[in-house]
Amino acid sequence: MLAEIVTIGDELCRGEIVDTNATFLASELWALGVTVGWMTSCRDLREDVVRAVKDAAARASVVLVSGGLGPTEDDLTVDAIAEAAGVGVAIESDARGRMEARFLRAGFTMTPNSLRQVRIPDGARVHANSAGIAPGFELALGGATLLAMPGVPRELRAIWADSAAARVRELRRGTDEIARVTLRVFGKGESHIDHLLAGLVADVPGATIHFQVVFPETLVKLVVRDPDRTVAEERLVRLAAEARTRLGPSAYGAGDDSLAAVLGRALASRGATVAVAESCTGGLAGALLTDVPGASTWFAGGVIAYANERKVADLGVLPATLVEHGAVSHACVLEMAASVRARIGATWAVAITGIAGPGGGSEAKPVGTVHVAVVGPEGRAAHKQYLFPGVREQVRRLAAYWAMALLLREVTA
Amino acid sequence: MLAEIVTIGDELCRGEIVDTNATFLASELWALGVTVGWMTSCRDLREDVVRAVKDAAARASVVLVSGGLGPTEDDLTVDAIAEAAGVGVAIESDARGRMEARFLRAGFTMTPNSLRQVRIPDGARVHANSAGIAPGFELALGGATLLAMPGVPRELRAIWADSAAARVRELRRGTDEIARVTLRVFGKGESHIDHLLAGLVADVPGATIHFQVVFPETLVKLVVRDPDRTVAEERLVRLAAEARTRLGPSAYGAGDDSLAAVLGRALASRGATVAVAESCTGGLAGALLTDVPGASTWFAGGVIAYANERKVADLGVLPATLVEHGAVSHACVLEMAASVRARIGATWAVAITGIAGPGGGSEAKPVGTVHVAVVGPEGRAAHKQYLFPGVREQVRRLAAYWAMALLLREVTA
Repeated sequence: MLAEIVTIGDELCRGEIVDTNATFLASELWALGVTVGWMTSCRDLREDVVRAVKDAAARASVVLVSGGLGPTEDDLTVDAIAEAAGVGVAIESDARGRMEARFLRAGFTMTPNSLRQVRIPDGARVHANSAGIAPGFELALGGATLLAMPGVPRELRAIWADSAAARVRELRRGTDEIARVTLRVFGKGESHIDHLLAGLVADVPGATIHFQVVFPETLVKLVVRDPDRTVAEERLVRLAAEARTRLGPSAYGAGDDSLAAVLGRALASRGATVAVAESCTGGLAGALLTDVPGASTWFAGGVIAYANERKVADLGVLPATLVEHGAVSHACVLEMAASVRARIGATWAVAITGIAGPGGGSEAKPVGTVHVAVVGPEGRAAHKQYLFPGVREQVRRLAAYWAMALLLREVTA
Repeated sequence: MLAEIVTIGDELCRGEIVDTNATFLASELWALGVTVGWMTSCRDLREDVVRAVKDAAARASVVLVSGGLGPTEDDLTVDAIAEAAGVGVAIESDARGRMEARFLRAGFTMTPNSLRQVRIPDGARVHANSAGIAPGFELALGGATLLAMPGVPRELRAIWADSAAARVRELRRGTDEIARVTLRVFGKGESHIDHLLAGLVADVPGATIHFQVVFPETLVKLVVRDPDRTVAEERLVRLAAEARTRLGPSAYGAGDDSLAAVLGRALASRGATVAVAESCTGGLAGALLTDVPGASTWFAGGVIAYANERKVADLGVLPATLVEHGAVSHACVLEMAASVRARIGATWAVAITGIAGPGGGSEAKPVGTVHVAVVGPEGRAAHKQYLFPGVREQVRRLAAYWAMALLLREVTA
């Protein structure tokens, strides 16, 4: 089954916004076993929209459309799709009722244009919008099924989750059920992961695997299709277990879990806390950790010691250490971690010091050199030295992630 | 003059990567006064690529193509474009020489496939790739000029900057010169900015304005076109000055300057330094500030005091302040700023405390409540209380940005 995605809007063609809707829908369709043949974006011009949906419907059996369903005169998608299908346009009464109730609550005044966004082509089937006003809708166009959704990503995703995804599954040829899981991997490159997982799905009927790099992580998406839901799920469980075994602890989580969230749970479940001491990352590790809701139960605090004199004054690094080994050294990072742990009184501490660039590198310590140390209870300590590739932003991000990964390894050891 | 963008790759149609190349090229074309009519993505299928470039060339006078120029068998763009143009394919000798030298330096072995990526269609004009191996190229297709570039964003941008942008300017119908500037605005919403700039370009010949939201900032792009370069530039200078006057200090910079970089220059030029004390942002302000290369000359250090006891122990906040006013209060944030300034010995200090959510809110202090304080030399002090909209990530980002903005205002006052 072939699908196409059509995204509509002047703002796309002027490069004012990145088309995340097309990527979201393509990824969802892939997971449903539906191949996307073409993705097209055009401006808010009626004739272009008509052409875009007609071309797509001539090539594919499912066409997903996003954008142009709002209240302004620029929003022409309903009219264009109706024209392409040779039907009229009418107010959709449920959506109108919800809009009027919403305006009343908010004290907004309806304008004549307000009604534009609750219109649908005659004979179209409604896909209700639980996150906004403009309803999604579905109709037959040529031999294809066309599904239109608003361009606001939150609304598009709501309609997709509420009814559109189920509808596409229904339309999909065959009766396969789909079981899927996304493993989150940090600390191994895509080609290394590919190598470790070689042959994983070869003997598993209906199983596929694909990768998505979300720097600095890699998402491994496992999908199993089978007419029997239980069979698909059992196969997926075995497959995911085998993948985790092969990937080891670098497969740290699944689904929407961030590395920081997994680390936070590991700490919280042990009644432990962590403190950070950051030099080259300047607060980034703390920012990532405290991005997790409820971090206050396990995140104690931290010190950003960017300059050498702050490492001495705020972190008790010995001046002799700086003289003999420098600020980017095993000795310095261990003193930073031990000191911040003692000062803040946390169960664990992690420290980061390095050369993020573009300046500051030398032959002995080139840009990208980073030391990470973890210090914990009962004299536990770990240290790693890295040489990260990339520009400043990448070096800093890699340093913060490796610090979290090293800490997770020690906490769960 | 109408342009189209064609981006090629299975990974796009599977939703594995977001198509930032199309957005980049669309934005660049808009600034050059070239309208993008359609943007199309297709898979690595020869017949689809042939159709995509032919359709685009039939509709537009310039076609920009990205992707599929690599060394693997999947990379079919050169062959497909050559087929569409009815020509053969040949090795491009300059690119081959550069590749061989590069492989020799790195100790890589050439494989037969390596040569695939230095081929171009017969008769095509080369656009050299200063950031990679595969050259860009240009040829006539129907009545259009087609320009192909690799899909690796770094390489595409290098070719664009080195020669492709200049070539599109050359091709652009008419002889207008283009003067452009991007103003960076933080602290005013898009509709407010729109209102303040109403009528700005109305009486200026050849002038246009458009907005791009890059949360939490808004970019205001001013463009002036005129046959005479000097006239265009003079008009732009006047326009930009008028826009800055109307927007006030919220138009903090231009071009690629981040708020942190502007703040850093303001501090460095005064021989001043800054320290941060962060609660709800957990290190984010420090991370943003130290993202600026060379931040060590003006960034002194910081304290992440997430828990109340850390505010007392590490920042000298009075226990009585916490009891009487709470951690999210005018009194607490001022004590945090004054204390971190004194402890770290910085010229300036900025402190942030608030409720980022999703939990922790109350009727008196709902989620999104944030206090920011700046303390400086000669008893200078400033305080702001905010109620930010949005989810945890947005509240934290807004808090860090407003803290930088308040500091910039005080430092430059």
